[in-house]
Amino acid sequence: MAVYTDITEDELIRFLAAYEVGSLTSYKGIAEGVENSNFLLHTTKGAYILTLYEKRVNADDLPFFLGLMHHLAERGLSCPLPLPRADGKLLGTLSGRPAAVISFLEGMWLRKPEAQHCREVGRALASMHQAGEGFPLKRPNALSVEGWRSLWRNSEARADEVQAGLKDEIATELASIEEHWPKDLPEGVIHADLFPDNVFFLGDRLSGLIDFYFACNDFLAYDVAICLNSWCFEKDGSYNITKGMALLSGYESVRRLTAEEDEALPLLARGSALRFFLTRLYDWLMTPPGALVVKKDPLEYLTKIRFHRAIVSSAEYGLRREEAPA
Amino acid sequence: MAVYTDITEDELIRFLAAYEVGSLTSYKGIAEGVENSNFLLHTTKGAYILTLYEKRVNADDLPFFLGLMHHLAERGLSCPLPLPRADGKLLGTLSGRPAAVISFLEGMWLRKPEAQHCREVGRALASMHQAGEGFPLKRPNALSVEGWRSLWRNSEARADEVQAGLKDEIATELASIEEHWPKDLPEGVIHADLFPDNVFFLGDRLSGLIDFYFACNDFLAYDVAICLNSWCFEKDGSYNITKGMALLSGYESVRRLTAEEDEALPLLARGSALRFFLTRLYDWLMTPPGALVVKKDPLEYLTKIRFHRAIVSSAEYGLRREEAPA
Repeated sequence: MAVYTDITEDELIRFLAAYEVGSLTSYKGIAEGVENSNFLLHTTKGAYILTLYEKRVNADDLPFFLGLMHHLAERGLSCPLPLPRADGKLLGTLSGRPAAVISFLEGMWLRKPEAQHCREVGRALASMHQAGEGFPLKRPNALSVEGWRSLWRNSEARADEVQAGLKDEIATELASIEEHWPKDLPEGVIHADLFPDNVFFLGDRLSGLIDFYFACNDFLAYDVAICLNSWCFEKDGSYNITKGMALLSGYESVRRLTAEEDEALPLLARGSALRFFLTRLYDWLMTPPGALVVKKDPLEYLTKIRFHRAIVSSAEYGLRREEAPA
Repeated sequence: MAVYTDITEDELIRFLAAYEVGSLTSYKGIAEGVENSNFLLHTTKGAYILTLYEKRVNADDLPFFLGLMHHLAERGLSCPLPLPRADGKLLGTLSGRPAAVISFLEGMWLRKPEAQHCREVGRALASMHQAGEGFPLKRPNALSVEGWRSLWRNSEARADEVQAGLKDEIATELASIEEHWPKDLPEGVIHADLFPDNVFFLGDRLSGLIDFYFACNDFLAYDVAICLNSWCFEKDGSYNITKGMALLSGYESVRRLTAEEDEALPLLARGSALRFFLTRLYDWLMTPPGALVVKKDPLEYLTKIRFHRAIVSSAEYGLRREEAPA
């Protein structure tokens, strides 16, 4: 939740001259997105989102993100569409930062999603995985298993400040996950951050997916594991298997998980819980007290890591497979 | 710049059922307003602002603020209009807070206003003063001269932390202003906070005034003094008399200042600079380091106090009066 950069109406109007968006009538900084500055624009032609990419986003990745949104939208996925400039490019420069104008997607993210919404999310995630096929650019997942150790090194020494014993527990966990991480699962473009605040609904109908700024190439089932973590746990830390069943069956109504993915799911879920634990721990320890950012509690994800460690089979997440005939 | 309270779409939809605003399609927390939580709503009927009044606003004052906006809008002033609920009331309750739905005013506030905009602001301020006539509710100005001493008592002991010598300088200043403060000037409803971020423009045309949450009954010329402070100084602390002339002549094109107001203006300007200095100093010293608020530098207003102290006549602000015939 942040607006890092303010802009004057003069520079904004000059910037917008390269787009076919009509005349600007209003712009407001909005309290969404942690990495970038976002403004909601009203013009004589409608509503748009203006995003200014701040330092935490690598400018070299922007063609991947914006190109992907374009690719997905062309293949029928409902997601924000970056508008082309008069020169055909999707990126411009505003206030010294890379900036894009993106179509405004009506809808609201659900603060309290229910099982039926989890089903919709599962279905949309699988549709995204299919729509991502053929996208020519590649972006490795810097926040997958190869990246966790260096992330951990930055927080390791101070981990016990957050909770006694954390240093040893995470070291063991990380080593175990590294050792067993799968090598050969179906790959493709994943969203990698499909939390509830990145999925819009109009009533109970999913209206679109947003925020592709962690998207990358990785195991498709890892994306499913991220959604199990972000959609199917209750505030008290308990796993809601009804939501898990809904999410997984929604996903499988579009794309069926292979036997290898089914088998790998508990480990992928542990790994993705560790990934969010590690980035939250780092932010928790490193964010200066005065920063205009709400820090998220890493311990929420410690609870999830422990839960997944005890899982033996994907059936415990709610994945349904026919019994072999007797 | 803050969203203090988040709301779920369920409670928002229930809350909106009492208004004739169509169906909700989107809501975003916006980074405007320091005292309240503001959301920009899109519905099938258009755009609206939802304001949740947080603790810093006294709920007893809300009928004054909302009633005033209604009164001003009915008299042709362009300002946001609070929408009535099915029961005729302007206020409801959302997330345990008083809340109002307000018409959305297109326009942008100017980060770098020029003299022509100052003229428009002067004209709009005088129009507001006239439109406020006949508004039956009263609200004393708690942040005028009677309130400054108690505000000062809360910061006095630590003032020299901000700048050496500040404690003595402000004590002398406050005593002098209290002694000479005018007793009998034209009164009415004033905006009391008409800074550039509270005035919207479409192109060079002023499209409306917003944020009436400091409005109160006080000397009309005190409101003019606040605008001289907030519109006519440059970032380097210098007074721009071209802007001052424009603001004052714009004001006088609608309502002419009396001889007593003309004479009192330097003292009113000193007093209003002291008022913003004192509240900023208090916030500067008292805001905890982790708070999600941008603190404004009180010293900007110390420079202004010193400037006004050296002013002998309103002509130095740019107020033009005919010479007496020779």
